[in-house]
Amino acid sequence: MAPITSLLTAENKKITGTALQGALVDLLDLALVGKQAHWNLTGRFFRTIHLQLDDIVSMARKKADAVAERAVAIGVNPDGRAQTVANDSHVPHLEAGPIEDGKAIAAMTDILESIIRRMRERIEATERPDPVSQDLIIGLTRDLEKHHWMIQAQLR
Amino acid sequence: MAPITSLLTAENKKITGTALQGALVDLLDLALVGKQAHWNLTGRFFRTIHLQLDDIVSMARKKADAVAERAVAIGVNPDGRAQTVANDSHVPHLEAGPIEDGKAIAAMTDILESIIRRMRERIEATERPDPVSQDLIIGLTRDLEKHHWMIQAQLR
Amino acid sequence: MAPITSLLTAENKKITGTALQGALVDLLDLALVGKQAHWNLTGRFFRTIHLQLDDIVSMARKKADAVAERAVAIGVNPDGRAQTVANDSHVPHLEAGPIEDGKAIAAMTDILESIIRRMRERIEATERPDPVSQDLIIGLTRDLEKHHWMIQAQLR
Amino acid sequence: MAPITSLLTAENKKITGTALQGALVDLLDLALVGKQAHWNLTGRFFRTIHLQLDDIVSMARKKADAVAERAVAIGVNPDGRAQTVANDSHVPHLEAGPIEDGKAIAAMTDILESIIRRMRERIEATERPDPVSQDLIIGLTRDLEKHHWMIQAQLR
Amino acid sequence: MAPITSLLTAENKKITGTALQGALVDLLDLALVGKQAHWNLTGRFFRTIHLQLDDIVSMARKKADAVAERAVAIGVNPDGRAQTVANDSHVPHLEAGPIEDGKAIAAMTDILESIIRRMRERIEATERPDPVSQDLIIGLTRDLEKHHWMIQAQLR
Amino acid sequence: MAPITSLLTAENKKITGTALQGALVDLLDLALVGKQAHWNLTGRFFRTIHLQLDDIVSMARKKADAVAERAVAIGVNPDGRAQTVANDSHVPHLEAGPIEDGKAIAAMTDILESIIRRMRERIEATERPDPVSQDLIIGLTRDLEKHHWMIQAQLR
Amino acid sequence: MAPITSLLTAENKKITGTALQGALVDLLDLALVGKQAHWNLTGRFFRTIHLQLDDIVSMARKKADAVAERAVAIGVNPDGRAQTVANDSHVPHLEAGPIEDGKAIAAMTDILESIIRRMRERIEATERPDPVSQDLIIGLTRDLEKHHWMIQAQLR
Amino acid sequence: MAPITSLLTAENKKITGTALQGALVDLLDLALVGKQAHWNLTGRFFRTIHLQLDDIVSMARKKADAVAERAVAIGVNPDGRAQTVANDSHVPHLEAGPIEDGKAIAAMTDILESIIRRMRERIEATERPDPVSQDLIIGLTRDLEKHHWMIQAQLR
Amino acid sequence: MAPITSLLTAENKKITGTALQGALVDLLDLALVGKQAHWNLTGRFFRTIHLQLDDIVSMARKKADAVAERAVAIGVNPDGRAQTVANDSHVPHLEAGPIEDGKAIAAMTDILESIIRRMRERIEATERPDPVSQDLIIGLTRDLEKHHWMIQAQLR
Amino acid sequence: MAPITSLLTAENKKITGTALQGALVDLLDLALVGKQAHWNLTGRFFRTIHLQLDDIVSMARKKADAVAERAVAIGVNPDGRAQTVANDSHVPHLEAGPIEDGKAIAAMTDILESIIRRMRERIEATERPDPVSQDLIIGLTRDLEKHHWMIQAQLR
Amino acid sequence: MAPITSLLTAENKKITGTALQGALVDLLDLALVGKQAHWNLTGRFFRTIHLQLDDIVSMARKKADAVAERAVAIGVNPDGRAQTVANDSHVPHLEAGPIEDGKAIAAMTDILESIIRRMRERIEATERPDPVSQDLIIGLTRDLEKHHWMIQAQLR
Amino acid sequence: MAPITSLLTAENKKITGTALQGALVDLLDLALVGKQAHWNLTGRFFRTIHLQLDDIVSMARKKADAVAERAVAIGVNPDGRAQTVANDSHVPHLEAGPIEDGKAIAAMTDILESIIRRMRERIEATERPDPVSQDLIIGLTRDLEKHHWMIQAQLR
Repeated sequence: MAPITSLLTAENKKITGTALQGALVDLLDLALVGKQAHWNLTGRFFRTIHLQLDDIVSMARKKADAVAERAVAIGVNPDGRAQTVANDSHVPHLEAGPIEDGKAIAAMTDILESIIRRMRERIEATERPDPVSQDLIIGLTRDLEKHHWMIQAQLR
Repeated sequence: MAPITSLLTAENKKITGTALQGALVDLLDLALVGKQAHWNLTGRFFRTIHLQLDDIVSMARKKADAVAERAVAIGVNPDGRAQTVANDSHVPHLEAGPIEDGKAIAAMTDILESIIRRMRERIEATERPDPVSQDLIIGLTRDLEKHHWMIQAQLR
Repeated sequence: MAPITSLLTAENKKITGTALQGALVDLLDLALVGKQAHWNLTGRFFRTIHLQLDDIVSMARKKADAVAERAVAIGVNPDGRAQTVANDSHVPHLEAGPIEDGKAIAAMTDILESIIRRMRERIEATERPDPVSQDLIIGLTRDLEKHHWMIQAQLR
Repeated sequence: MAPITSLLTAENKKITGTALQGALVDLLDLALVGKQAHWNLTGRFFRTIHLQLDDIVSMARKKADAVAERAVAIGVNPDGRAQTVANDSHVPHLEAGPIEDGKAIAAMTDILESIIRRMRERIEATERPDPVSQDLIIGLTRDLEKHHWMIQAQLR
Repeated sequence: MAPITSLLTAENKKITGTALQGALVDLLDLALVGKQAHWNLTGRFFRTIHLQLDDIVSMARKKADAVAERAVAIGVNPDGRAQTVANDSHVPHLEAGPIEDGKAIAAMTDILESIIRRMRERIEATERPDPVSQDLIIGLTRDLEKHHWMIQAQLR
Repeated sequence: MAPITSLLTAENKKITGTALQGALVDLLDLALVGKQAHWNLTGRFFRTIHLQLDDIVSMARKKADAVAERAVAIGVNPDGRAQTVANDSHVPHLEAGPIEDGKAIAAMTDILESIIRRMRERIEATERPDPVSQDLIIGLTRDLEKHHWMIQAQLR
Repeated sequence: MAPITSLLTAENKKITGTALQGALVDLLDLALVGKQAHWNLTGRFFRTIHLQLDDIVSMARKKADAVAERAVAIGVNPDGRAQTVANDSHVPHLEAGPIEDGKAIAAMTDILESIIRRMRERIEATERPDPVSQDLIIGLTRDLEKHHWMIQAQLR
Repeated sequence: MAPITSLLTAENKKITGTALQGALVDLLDLALVGKQAHWNLTGRFFRTIHLQLDDIVSMARKKADAVAERAVAIGVNPDGRAQTVANDSHVPHLEAGPIEDGKAIAAMTDILESIIRRMRERIEATERPDPVSQDLIIGLTRDLEKHHWMIQAQLR
Repeated sequence: MAPITSLLTAENKKITGTALQGALVDLLDLALVGKQAHWNLTGRFFRTIHLQLDDIVSMARKKADAVAERAVAIGVNPDGRAQTVANDSHVPHLEAGPIEDGKAIAAMTDILESIIRRMRERIEATERPDPVSQDLIIGLTRDLEKHHWMIQAQLR
Repeated sequence: MAPITSLLTAENKKITGTALQGALVDLLDLALVGKQAHWNLTGRFFRTIHLQLDDIVSMARKKADAVAERAVAIGVNPDGRAQTVANDSHVPHLEAGPIEDGKAIAAMTDILESIIRRMRERIEATERPDPVSQDLIIGLTRDLEKHHWMIQAQLR
Repeated sequence: MAPITSLLTAENKKITGTALQGALVDLLDLALVGKQAHWNLTGRFFRTIHLQLDDIVSMARKKADAVAERAVAIGVNPDGRAQTVANDSHVPHLEAGPIEDGKAIAAMTDILESIIRRMRERIEATERPDPVSQDLIIGLTRDLEKHHWMIQAQLR
Repeated sequence: MAPITSLLTAENKKITGTALQGALVDLLDLALVGKQAHWNLTGRFFRTIHLQLDDIVSMARKKADAVAERAVAIGVNPDGRAQTVANDSHVPHLEAGPIEDGKAIAAMTDILESIIRRMRERIEATERPDPVSQDLIIGLTRDLEKHHWMIQAQLR
């Protein structure tokens, strides 16, 4: 079965594919960990953070879909299975069980910063190989940085 | 930090909590594996199955959320992290890379049947301990069985 | 051509299939007879009953679809052809030609009561064989009994 | 109870009423048989035809309502009861049980052609007696012929 | 100031313009008289007729607009001023002051029949001169006859 | 048939009823004359004024309805028949036939000013007799003055 | 805990607060008694009055909310608890059990008139102390009087 | 005046009617007390709890309506008048005047727990007498327990 | 590959197919030329004509689709490729580059008149061969003539 | 260039114009300062106040537009340029840079109170000169006082 | 008539204008050829490809509009007339008459690849001359490549 | 109080922050000056420009919000207070009082060109320091240039 063809060179396809697969794992794990905190949250700030986390999850799911479909469009098969996310993710760990609101904010700030750091490297990496994929990553990085600010502002 | 209280006895809470946590893992893995097939699908039937898989993912996400919120409402903390899903899931494995349409239909039929089998056990298990949780599981089993039919009908 | 498989035993599938096929015939005939009265109605109360009958038809069509799709999902082929409805229906007969509003209300009260009586038997019959199908029949019986009250209240 | 009056002569009312009653039976049977195939369909093309059949049923129901209300508006009581549809319909027969996708397309092509043939006769028959009813039949014939093309195109 | 030009001959324009101007006066007066009854209605059937009259007014206004814009499109200036409607209308008279529900139904039945009679003459008159205008009048006559039935059904 | 009762004294009811009936005639005539200009308009500014006139008509119709329903609510039967509007209206006359855009703007400015002048008198007249009706007239006067400005601004 | 401050003098706040608290009790009781009749209604006019009562309840709830929030905005704590409504309400009593349609209309006419009478006193009482609150009461009185007319019209 | 008939035995009707009437009083009082806290709330968490309380009130009103209509549908007249709610309610008391946010959360947790306890008894009581009513109570109990968790989580 | 069958005779199919193919070319060219003027427009009337042209394009595209689908439904393959439109169109030519508003209105008036002239011939040509296709052409001619008036009115 | 004319006397126009221009500056500055706090907010209450401030800004912008359009409608040109707002505003000053949530609430309470104080003076000033403008200012003062309560409640 | 001015240098305007005009021709031809296939399609996969082609046409039309408006915004007049598209297009040719589904997919894959190849050259060409235009072309290239994947996947 | 952190270097943050603050002042002033012209406009072209200015204001407000939130997301506090806008803006001055339509178009063309010139410098300035912010500025520049064309086209 021949793969989907695209106009990228093999080298550019490889670099871009790696960036997109990395972004996919980051975004899928963000969605899972965001829901985990959304459900197990406790504390006086429960309701507002519960809603805020759902905004983040919703954004992460939408962008994960765009990233995966971009990968296959350039001829690279994305891998978003649970095992792959569990093994490859660099998203900071979240403990099981109830999560106090203050801890949830601190953890989410770290998680978003960690993902943003990798996304900024992917923006650089894809600039020449594929400006079309780069543009997608630039756009989702703006969303991630907006949420990073709105979570972090609660720690100031 | 005291857990969320509910009116279930410790025994009933344990049985119900186990059923809900099992359902959560099944539904989250269904959503991940459904998206995996949605992205990597190939073949003449690509478009219609691509859309059908998104219907399944959308249902799985919505029901996973309801199940996890039901668990915390009875005082049991749900666990939906990538590592937990990867370790605990009994959902049949899906290979990485491109998936031909015929194989995707066959795989999805097996996956749904496997989940439905466990859900029917959970309906029985929760009947006496918590009819409120049982009612939720009955409802989502109807959705799963409807999708099972609509996928399986393509194999007849 | 192998039938759709489900996890019900042959015995349970037969009992549940019979209940669902019976419900389907009742609901399709309710939709046809409801429209018949909706069109041929006369009398000072024309407009309000004309609209009320459309609410009933709309509910009957939606539930008939759910019931038929439930039947096929458990591996039983539903039969909703005109001949089958005409032969198998136990819904009380409605004369052709113009229908006075008072007679329409009385006829509709009888029709709904007749269907509800059979639905309540189906709730009992399916409780053990298939609680998932039972839950569907319980839900539509509530709708039928609500309409039965709102029609019947006009006779008090 | 005096019938609804209209401005048509007795002769024109009779011709037009016959055409509308015939159209009503055709459309109601189309809706029933369309749902029958929608539920019992099997085969690789299941999903796309399942949806297509619902488009046809939805159109048939809407037009049946318009036709029946047109009949009563000219003083002719329409008859859409199950027995009448079963007895008077000339729509080709559909077997009970599972229907393979290829057979469903072939059957639906025949059914639509059969109905269209009668509708075209009704367009001619009503031209002078009642151009208002004729205009309604012309409009629904266009819808029927559009669906006939879209079903039939799958056989080419 | 040169008038709007159209492709109709002077003769056809004159016949069609007369039909459209007549239809306009009928529809504007129907809207005014419908509102008059809508406001001044009394009796046990107040609410349902109050709403029904608004449906008629809404239809009359929409069709009046279509008819007037059709007139100007063929180069005939429509006249819908109060004085013109008051002088030229053949719509049966409605007394000032409170209107009992039974009388409102009877009056509205007469009014609609009177308008329909003239519309049917306009359908004949415009058939050859301008089938485009005729098609518009056929369509609105269907609406008028539907409302005529639904009002009149309350007298049976 | 006893009239609708309200809590206003006979004197206050009479004053308020007169104000509301006057407002009704003004608003109904505004709607008719607004449509007349909307249809017969010519000139380079056709499209923008054509749309602006429809905004005015739409406001006039809505407020006429509110005013008439207010009248009947205080026990005064409103009269909005064509003959009454034709006889009682003080709205400046509009010639039949095509209307150049500049003339339409000038005429509409005069018409709105004429109506506003009477509405302001009604605000004063109803202040003590019925502040509830006054509030309605104040509100619609604001709408009239807004449209007066937007029409008049085209003359500056 | 200091109360919410506002710019009204103590005297004006007291007068306005009394008016708003009285209006709140009236509107909450209207909503409860409206639903009571909505549920227990019988008779040939069941459906239309059932719907009409829901319109009244919906208006009463919306306005009760506005009135209570207005009270707290001027520094007066509203009291809308069941005991307070039961003790302080002057709304005429409604018997338990089934309510015939004619009796429901008569009772609702009395109830609305009783509330309107008190609202008109509150309009006067608040004119100088707080025109902002007065404007709110004027607006809701118009709604109450509209419903009073539409209920009462059925008795004429 | 004969009561609405249903297919329940007298004994089952009585048991079910008692459960539904009890649920109605609980839900109506929840709606009133929820609004009371919504209006009189103070403290840094004002806005988020203000909104959360409105979600609860909205759910309570919708379910109260469903419960009352279910009662009348089985032939039992519901009683939702202020006096009945004030006398029969077992919902914990709420003080008049301003309510600090912490106290509001604690009070609401108690109120919801108290209602849930009674609802769970009603689920048991209605299981055999009327599974249709039971299904309604199961559904609303899930909503109540969800809100109980989301309120209570703020105390952890 | 057998063509789509229809019930028209070969002769009627040919006449109707020619009319529909001609209409298709006219409408596609109208959409292209309308957009061309929409983009390149200049002058004080820019904004209102820019919007008006988009209304025309939107209508033309929708009707072109209906016409092409009608052609294939009667068994005639429509041809809407650029080369065909360029070669077969009789729509008056539009110069490249900026278009002054006055010129755009004059050109559009000519273009619409030219298309309407051909459409009226097609209405006559299809009357006997296929009243269903004729009805479609009558409907779109009304739209074309309405836009012709609204464009032309700016030249008066 | 002659100004827009209105029916107010020169004296009344001057008084009303002054009130409206003052209100405009207040509302525009409220919108700017509300956004400033919305962006620069920090602290644990970030999210809920961030959203609350946007509600205030949205209301301020809508009312500023209504006030400015009211001014021009009575013949007074409003001035909402940055320089004018900066020079004429009496809204309390807000420091640049990050704003802690507690400070933001305190500042917003002062700002709203300051604006409300001036609005209440404008209500008095415009009562006789122009009750139409007064009604607009009364309405927006109610909105301002509602937001003042909801902000201030967080300080209690 | 002076052209629209922009801030681009003559050189940059020329390069960017050439890229945009080329993109316009590609997108307009894609829309025409996509509709051509949408109408003339045959084969078992008719319905799903028929719908997919409409998604492509809809995207192509929207982007063509954006590209043309971008051209005029930088001072270059776009040319989208039929003759220009027919002469200048490099989009692969499509035969007239019926198109089998397999051929349609193959043809569309070639067409999209051909357009994407030119778009990628335009991305490079416009990077320095006008990053604003480049960003538009990058965005639409992502859409084209997504559709290219979804069409091509059916060939794997 | 520590500022919001981001991953930009101090140097890059400074450059980007300066660009964003400049863009914010430009966009806020554009919104204020756009409304100023929207309100004070006069002349025959009043209505169409009045609406066009609102489109520009709406775009300016939305983009100002995005720019300010981007600034704070990278750790730079935006300043959008009236005094800052008044002092720092380079947007060309607009006279107070009535504005003739021709002058408004000329002024708006200058204002938009002036802002676009600065935005293009910011696109260059931010390319290396922060491609994420640059992408935002590129996007809003496209909107500004589109409006610049549509305003300027009226001068040609």
